[in-house]
Amino acid sequence: MKLKFTKMHGLGNDFVVIDAVSRPVALDVAAIRRLADRHFGVGCDQVLVVEPPPGPEADFRYRIFNADGSEVAQCGNGARCFARFVREKGLIDRDVIRVVTAAGSMTLTLVGEDRVRVNMGVPNFDPATIPLAVHEEMPEYQVSVAGHDVIFGAVSLGNPHAVIVVPSVEKAPVAAVGAALQRHPLFPERVNVGFMEIVSPGEVRLRVYERGSGETLACGSGACAAAVVGIDQGRLRSPVTVALPGGELTVEWRGRGEPVWMTGPAESVFEGEIEL
Amino acid sequence: MKLKFTKMHGLGNDFVVIDAVSRPVALDVAAIRRLADRHFGVGCDQVLVVEPPPGPEADFRYRIFNADGSEVAQCGNGARCFARFVREKGLIDRDVIRVVTAAGSMTLTLVGEDRVRVNMGVPNFDPATIPLAVHEEMPEYQVSVAGHDVIFGAVSLGNPHAVIVVPSVEKAPVAAVGAALQRHPLFPERVNVGFMEIVSPGEVRLRVYERGSGETLACGSGACAAAVVGIDQGRLRSPVTVALPGGELTVEWRGRGEPVWMTGPAESVFEGEIEL
Repeated sequence: MKLKFTKMHGLGNDFVVIDAVSRPVALDVAAIRRLADRHFGVGCDQVLVVEPPPGPEADFRYRIFNADGSEVAQCGNGARCFARFVREKGLIDRDVIRVVTAAGSMTLTLVGEDRVRVNMGVPNFDPATIPLAVHEEMPEYQVSVAGHDVIFGAVSLGNPHAVIVVPSVEKAPVAAVGAALQRHPLFPERVNVGFMEIVSPGEVRLRVYERGSGETLACGSGACAAAVVGIDQGRLRSPVTVALPGGELTVEWRGRGEPVWMTGPAESVFEGEIEL
Repeated sequence: MKLKFTKMHGLGNDFVVIDAVSRPVALDVAAIRRLADRHFGVGCDQVLVVEPPPGPEADFRYRIFNADGSEVAQCGNGARCFARFVREKGLIDRDVIRVVTAAGSMTLTLVGEDRVRVNMGVPNFDPATIPLAVHEEMPEYQVSVAGHDVIFGAVSLGNPHAVIVVPSVEKAPVAAVGAALQRHPLFPERVNVGFMEIVSPGEVRLRVYERGSGETLACGSGACAAAVVGIDQGRLRSPVTVALPGGELTVEWRGRGEPVWMTGPAESVFEGEIEL
């Protein structure tokens, strides 16, 4: 089977994006792994498959697969690439796009030339939801891991996040504390760990140790978690510019009970065709 | 500029291959780096540019560039991909292809469906040529590095190689000894270090710590160096099958003063087009 694809990235988090709307495409685990392999295939962090919607309430459905073939529920960087892809391919001619993902429905808005605004859902601070094994919700929690006394805020954005305020992201012990905290019994489903340096109330620098992957160039939900925790603690004011190693995102949040909005770039890198 | 390319690999050593025969292509360092970047570009170990020959004694010229934009003189895996590329693209209709590289002239032969036989030149054991800082050529040399007493053979295949016979490639201290030996004063221009497990006189397993890159999936000249040193020491008999982490190569050598021949696979992975 000859398969056309577009290689895209959002802040360096890269995707092989496939149009399964114009014609059906069936990819098994072996095909996903082949596409994702950086030496023997195309190479990407995730494969994103755009499909027709399940019903009239959405414009599309999309599915995201990790390089090992497992399916991912949610990915902010992937959502932005999806929105730019359907517009560039002429699959839709509106700026507001409704899509169904494994994590639920989402509305994406194209902003200017190459930025996309995404509703990332309502953050949840309830320890049972995160899940965080404590009896009572608090603005900050304390734990001793890998020889460091760590103070962190915690929030769920569909996935669990711990956010640690540090004096310098360069000097932060990201690998040691990230690895230790994500396997700590406090987090029964592990956790994404953000290390946030506050530059001003509207600007932070962030490095994220992702659950299962280690440090990444850019974690969209991690950026939202950091801004939300900072705003909730009174350290930051919306909108917050989050500078990640892969580039910048803007996060807006009006406070508890409200959804968090993330705006960031999505870029097409090249078009390709592979025999699978 | 829109640029068409083919992504290929030889034993997992991967290349973006560009046809600069059908029309001229000028790539600056920024373009090479962009093409080679695995997240923001296409992604490859090296970029290979196929050009018209400098004169009637060759069919083509090719140039190979590292991901940082620097030019490489020689690459066995790249040579095989080049040969398959010019044939698949219809740039030549013969099985024997004469090419000029930065390291000199070379003749490549297509064998069967997807294998290519390459003349890798005449191995040179002279310490001054390798270069190896000893007074006298010997079949084996001894040195103590990184807490290991190491016995190695040494040979030049255009680039310097040390070959260490080990009881098991899995257990060999590749990173520690490889890093220590390549910066040892014995090797003023550093060295590629091969760790060879002899399975039978015609079959070895090999891991190579490459000068400047660390351990790689497959080093063509390292495979030739290992077989040649083993044959010269009387441990192996030509032809030798060399199993590398990325796959197998066959090495033929008739003895001192004769060229070494390497036969191995080259595969096209996908076709692409990028805006540079």
